[in-house]
Amino acid sequence: MSETKVKHADEIFKSFKMQSVSEFFKKNAAMLGYTGKLRSLTTLVHEGVTNSLDACEEARLFPDISVYISEIGPEHYRVIMEDNASGIPLDYIPHVFGKMLAGSKAHRNIQSRGQQGIGVSGAVMYSQVTTGKPTEVVTSTGDKIINKVNIKIDVEKNAGEIISRETLKNPDKWRGTRINLEAKNLQYNRSKYGPYSYLKMTAIANPHTRILFVEPDGTKILFDRNVRVIPKNPKEMKPHPHGTSADDILSMIKNSSATRVRTFLVSEFTRVSTKKVEEIEQISGLDLDINPKKVDWEYAEKLVNAIKQITFMAPPTEGLIPIGADSVKLGLEGILAPEFVHTVTRSPQTYHGGIAFIVEAGIAYGGGAGNNGLDIIRYANRTPLIFDQGGCCITEAAKSIDWKRYGVKDDNAPLTIFVNLVSTHIPYTSAGKQAIATEEEIYNEIRFALMEAGRSLSRYLSGKRRAHEKLTKKKTLLRYVVETSNALGSLIKAEDNSKIIKALTDIVEKKYDFEETNGSEEKANQILEENGAEEVSENGE
Amino acid sequence: MSETKVKHADEIFKSFKMQSVSEFFKKNAAMLGYTGKLRSLTTLVHEGVTNSLDACEEARLFPDISVYISEIGPEHYRVIMEDNASGIPLDYIPHVFGKMLAGSKAHRNIQSRGQQGIGVSGAVMYSQVTTGKPTEVVTSTGDKIINKVNIKIDVEKNAGEIISRETLKNPDKWRGTRINLEAKNLQYNRSKYGPYSYLKMTAIANPHTRILFVEPDGTKILFDRNVRVIPKNPKEMKPHPHGTSADDILSMIKNSSATRVRTFLVSEFTRVSTKKVEEIEQISGLDLDINPKKVDWEYAEKLVNAIKQITFMAPPTEGLIPIGADSVKLGLEGILAPEFVHTVTRSPQTYHGGIAFIVEAGIAYGGGAGNNGLDIIRYANRTPLIFDQGGCCITEAAKSIDWKRYGVKDDNAPLTIFVNLVSTHIPYTSAGKQAIATEEEIYNEIRFALMEAGRSLSRYLSGKRRAHEKLTKKKTLLRYVVETSNALGSLIKAEDNSKIIKALTDIVEKKYDFEETNGSEEKANQILEENGAEEVSENGE
Repeated sequence: MSETKVKHADEIFKSFKMQSVSEFFKKNAAMLGYTGKLRSLTTLVHEGVTNSLDACEEARLFPDISVYISEIGPEHYRVIMEDNASGIPLDYIPHVFGKMLAGSKAHRNIQSRGQQGIGVSGAVMYSQVTTGKPTEVVTSTGDKIINKVNIKIDVEKNAGEIISRETLKNPDKWRGTRINLEAKNLQYNRSKYGPYSYLKMTAIANPHTRILFVEPDGTKILFDRNVRVIPKNPKEMKPHPHGTSADDILSMIKNSSATRVRTFLVSEFTRVSTKKVEEIEQISGLDLDINPKKVDWEYAEKLVNAIKQITFMAPPTEGLIPIGADSVKLGLEGILAPEFVHTVTRSPQTYHGGIAFIVEAGIAYGGGAGNNGLDIIRYANRTPLIFDQGGCCITEAAKSIDWKRYGVKDDNAPLTIFVNLVSTHIPYTSAGKQAIATEEEIYNEIRFALMEAGRSLSRYLSGKRRAHEKLTKKKTLLRYVVETSNALGSLIKAEDNSKIIKALTDIVEKKYDFEETNGSEEKANQILEENGAEEVSENGE
Repeated sequence: MSETKVKHADEIFKSFKMQSVSEFFKKNAAMLGYTGKLRSLTTLVHEGVTNSLDACEEARLFPDISVYISEIGPEHYRVIMEDNASGIPLDYIPHVFGKMLAGSKAHRNIQSRGQQGIGVSGAVMYSQVTTGKPTEVVTSTGDKIINKVNIKIDVEKNAGEIISRETLKNPDKWRGTRINLEAKNLQYNRSKYGPYSYLKMTAIANPHTRILFVEPDGTKILFDRNVRVIPKNPKEMKPHPHGTSADDILSMIKNSSATRVRTFLVSEFTRVSTKKVEEIEQISGLDLDINPKKVDWEYAEKLVNAIKQITFMAPPTEGLIPIGADSVKLGLEGILAPEFVHTVTRSPQTYHGGIAFIVEAGIAYGGGAGNNGLDIIRYANRTPLIFDQGGCCITEAAKSIDWKRYGVKDDNAPLTIFVNLVSTHIPYTSAGKQAIATEEEIYNEIRFALMEAGRSLSRYLSGKRRAHEKLTKKKTLLRYVVETSNALGSLIKAEDNSKIIKALTDIVEKKYDFEETNGSEEKANQILEENGAEEVSENGE
């Protein structure tokens, strides 16, 4: 190849273009989870249900969700999802369903399932791209009217387009949202990657929710509410100073009305008192009375370096709502009926950017646990993660643990690991939100949580092993009680050996005390019976 | 919780906002690969190098790339990357380095490493977010001037911002681009996840490329060009009709100037001849003389259904440039020095949307292969994929194969799998482009390629096993040659048994002929020696 053929940059850059975020995700639908027929269907359900759950919690309501899936042709399904949340004002409908990166969550430091403003627009797009049809949205905020709208995405503009609109009367003050879409290249089944499993897993982690699910064959399943207390409402949280970067500080200053850095720090961060500000002042040597708008990178970096040297209280817990160790335990017992369960809810931590998080973990052993060796159940903010297990921080942390140290024999041991990551911002590896990036702090916390549960498992297993050894020894000794007693009896020429039997049994039982025994007396009788001895009265007569 | 506390939708939607794609990826940097100190550094290098390789190929040049990494503070590095490609016209600099989803590749059906227009802007953003500094870009299209520009991203606007600009004279007509950035929260080492390994893997799959790499400690490494032929230039490809969806057809019509559907089909697709159009007409019953602008969803869907029933030639190969089975073999031999290698380049296929792809695969066995059991080397369009292995279609396909059927004993067998996916559009699972989504057609092709290589491995291993068995039998028999000869000798009263020994050895050698033997005579002598016999001359005297 000679240099004479070299293309000039001007020629190359003629084809330079911009694309909208919708075009990007249309072309890269796999990044949103639209890959494979079953996964695509589960993704549609996932997007609708997480939006509904978030909306209900935000409106402070017990979620009441219905999901109907029906088959309308080969690999062609209709999905209807309805909730009882706050409804969507007409003006926002095109943005919610037709504009990616639009939403009420991305810019707030609050725990929620959705955080991107992509998901449900992605569902509308998938429907449109496979069937050419709009999505029907019926919604009311509980006032006089219900809006019934057909919406499409203008992919090039990344904008929602209302194709048709109808206004219905709302005499019953119905409030909520119902979306009705159809899509192709789908498949329904009850495997662990399907909508049924997804909804079941959702119900387990959201016991305050009622989900009615109608399968394509008409089967109705009710995942009923079994907690009458709605979880605490997640609160918008101020960032924790630890881990906050210079860039974060400069971004926060843009949106702050504070007139001095001193007050900026106290008002915009959690756990920063005026006393702590004095410490920051002393360590950094900075003038904290300047106007925040004058803060440059160098100043912000000095601030961050000083903050790193100071101990602050852990972030407050009220912003993060775990499922709770008891609920996790109930959930695991419900699905797996294991022999042993231990659940842990760790105290809050932060990862970079001062983002608070909590890890809850559980270990189930025996029974239905770990059907195929190590089984990992993953959640993020109470939303089940069922795809992309291999590339997830939870999987990596769980696999990094040497389970043998906790008494687990081998890879085929019946072990199920449960982890729920709770955070105001989950660092997903992809817009499809099925795997968590391996952030060091999160990885470590998951490990600590699993090790804590592991120690409890270890005690259980070694107790079980000791108990088993004790029982074996005791059984062996008890086997010789009658013979020994008879021998002793004839040595001392006793008329009735039953007293000796009782005494010996007593000794053995005491030495190998085991909680399952019903007392040495009963045992002695049992032994005598088993050895064909006649019933003996307590005094041996 | 009572209904009286229910928040009204109007209150909730007050906080509804749009965010730019840059804001989105700043908040979700893990999706771009910025997670973990080592991975973040490798990602920076990856983004620069893939852009340079694509730019060189597009300009039809042998790539000459330099990468300098230096440590300028704790976890703080400078990365300089330079190429000899076409350079970037001044007007495009802000878009290339500061605007995400802008590029020359996303909308063209052409094989390239980058395809999103996100990567290098992501690098500029990561640098800016961790250090507050702009990225320096020095570039010339080979004309009179060199532009030296400092650029930042305005994250809210998703736009590049030129902070300062200098114009230098270019007497030597230098042409190329050099970017110079610094970033923090990084770590350098030579592990398989670091820049060294990344560049080595890149060099293996791009033997027409010269890469000079300077490590932080000053070590210079030259991955030299070892092929004097530049790979064929990937060509922009028309989509293949198979797998094209109704939505694809409607999108394509928007950009087509054809006035009849008939001509639209012939001109916009590959492998559609006028004869094939007649078939489509017959099967669909559609009027193909209408103006494409009148095509609606229903019409497009009928078209697609008809197309599905027709056999078309496989997509042309010239648009897809594999590494080539021989180069892959050389590469694997170079890194692993295995005992056995087999490589396969499959014929092109399409996956949904009529997107053409080729799978190349290789298996290396023994030697340095599979150090830790099954090892998987993954590439997409000759770019190494080194992260997110667990969630990748290649890994899933490789693990789905029952290697025992191919003579591989167990999980600890020394096996390295190589797969390169070549396509005009790689369905990545995330914008970080480290894992491929499990598209059914791709998954199957990878399996077929590996099975083909597996059959060859199986032949090799069973040959080896047979040879081993032969050798064992032969050794056993040869062990008795002297004894049997002596017995025979005394039976026939021979004076010298060496002739009998020679004759018997001959028989055994012939029966268990094995290429490694040096002839029966030498063997006979060897046996005689080993058994303490005296040297015998050829005629036995």
